[in-house]
Amino acid sequence: MTTICVDVMGADKEPAVLLEGVAAALEGDPELEALVAGDASVVEPFCAAHARARALVTTEVIAMSEHPASAVRKKRDASIVRAAAAVRAGEADGLFSAGSTGAVLTAATFGVGRVRGIKRPALSLSFPGTSGRSTVFLDMGANADVKPDVIVQFAQMGRAYARTVLGVDEPRVGLLTNGSEETKGSEMALAYHEALAAGNCGFSGNAEGTDLLAGTFDVIVADGFTGNVALKSVEGTGKFMIGRLKAAMGESLSHKIGMALLKDPLKKMASDLSGDEYGGAILLGLRAPVVKGHGATSARAVCQGTLFAASLARSGLCAQIADACEIAR
Amino acid sequence: MTTICVDVMGADKEPAVLLEGVAAALEGDPELEALVAGDASVVEPFCAAHARARALVTTEVIAMSEHPASAVRKKRDASIVRAAAAVRAGEADGLFSAGSTGAVLTAATFGVGRVRGIKRPALSLSFPGTSGRSTVFLDMGANADVKPDVIVQFAQMGRAYARTVLGVDEPRVGLLTNGSEETKGSEMALAYHEALAAGNCGFSGNAEGTDLLAGTFDVIVADGFTGNVALKSVEGTGKFMIGRLKAAMGESLSHKIGMALLKDPLKKMASDLSGDEYGGAILLGLRAPVVKGHGATSARAVCQGTLFAASLARSGLCAQIADACEIAR
Repeated sequence: MTTICVDVMGADKEPAVLLEGVAAALEGDPELEALVAGDASVVEPFCAAHARARALVTTEVIAMSEHPASAVRKKRDASIVRAAAAVRAGEADGLFSAGSTGAVLTAATFGVGRVRGIKRPALSLSFPGTSGRSTVFLDMGANADVKPDVIVQFAQMGRAYARTVLGVDEPRVGLLTNGSEETKGSEMALAYHEALAAGNCGFSGNAEGTDLLAGTFDVIVADGFTGNVALKSVEGTGKFMIGRLKAAMGESLSHKIGMALLKDPLKKMASDLSGDEYGGAILLGLRAPVVKGHGATSARAVCQGTLFAASLARSGLCAQIADACEIAR
Repeated sequence: MTTICVDVMGADKEPAVLLEGVAAALEGDPELEALVAGDASVVEPFCAAHARARALVTTEVIAMSEHPASAVRKKRDASIVRAAAAVRAGEADGLFSAGSTGAVLTAATFGVGRVRGIKRPALSLSFPGTSGRSTVFLDMGANADVKPDVIVQFAQMGRAYARTVLGVDEPRVGLLTNGSEETKGSEMALAYHEALAAGNCGFSGNAEGTDLLAGTFDVIVADGFTGNVALKSVEGTGKFMIGRLKAAMGESLSHKIGMALLKDPLKKMASDLSGDEYGGAILLGLRAPVVKGHGATSARAVCQGTLFAASLARSGLCAQIADACEIAR
């Protein structure tokens, strides 16, 4: 049995949506056990009705609007804080939450704890590439400013992920910058380039924004500032294009029919770009897998995210990351 | 008459493609005169056959692969170098080139010259927004690292552009960063935020990657590193989505029919995202308008870019930028 602790509070959606996702995950994976964290009135009836579901009754919730660090410090009985503590105590093998990104990051980093030697955990997402190969992208925004040695750790973590989860033997690692030539970059990016080249981490050169979805690299690393700007540019472009196509539907009947015929590939694309296939982003560098879903999550994304956390727990990814960083030191 | 100097060499495409674009521009605008820079064998027959076209015979070309600064220094008779000098000498009111970005930037900055007081010219593009409002985005990559006072000038230049070209009375200026809250950002972005807030430049807060195509700001500024990553992320996402839809055509006849029905809006979208509606990006901060087309340009883009350079020359944008920067000092 693999136990995943699911925080069903603190998302933009009602706990009922999250519980529906947990139920689907339990049904989909007979080797899964869920530790469901939330208010007694929410989790107890659910756990009574579902085999392999145990309640972790909590009394507080961290809202999206709260300052993450101070809320995590003050609300000792918040669902996400208790969920992280349960993972640390060995009561669960991984965690899924669709709460505030800052709160999940803070609670998980301090609660679950970092892999020994890891300086900063990073938020990562894997994108489907045009070439059919996926690309792991990190950091998506957990750390705005990072030093070159931290970028090297991001590369090592990304490489461990590409090997363990994507099954790539020799992952090619790229650095997100403003040109493919090695002389291109801001001063900081040039320092990252130098550290990566010396870092024994599979570095194979500079990547550009156009590489994120092209499958040209297995791993693309960036500091969290650059990564977040890139990720949201991808997201915004997806929304823009879908929006434009939807607006075109109003222009003529033939556009409307065209959209109806393309409904499935458009839906698949939107899901690929949002990371919903995996249910969310992974916080790499912690002692157990932590998957962070969108605040505006869906039952399907919660199901996928919970199953994904379970598969990550079984994959031994965290041990691989620990090994990669041990070897590199 | 407005004269635009068009560099017909140095693009990835044959000069004939560029000449076709110049011919279309001359046909479209009876008040336009073209000064056509390139090899004698290319430009002389064209100018003999077209009224309002004069030849600027040059003997050298800067290739895409050459190092921009040293090529501009060494090749004194390169088409882009001579074109910039012709603008400075008052023989033309603006410039269009689809040559190497670095060479166009260098030759134009030194050849055409900067507006008095402007520290760094910036590459800008205007995006169509979902809301129907366009957004001017700069810097797209001319300057990887910039100081906070330069970002304030970018805001002033962008604001002058939004007023003069887009007709917005009180442009809202945003700073591209990793979160809308003012506490979000890398150390550098926080310094930019502070300078913009104090800069009397219409600053209205942080923008995210999702704002680039949403029309939520009239101007979005970033250093050239961040701007280039964002721009290429937008471009890559566009390619990914169009590629996915094209791949779906092979899956079923209904997808194929759907694509055929949506051909026009898809084409319009691809053109909007590539900046081809304007024929290219504008180098803001120089004494005359310089429009830089894609290396892999088309006759249509050359035509649009040449007409756009002429309309910018007539708009008085460069004087507006000079005024904005005088006032701010």
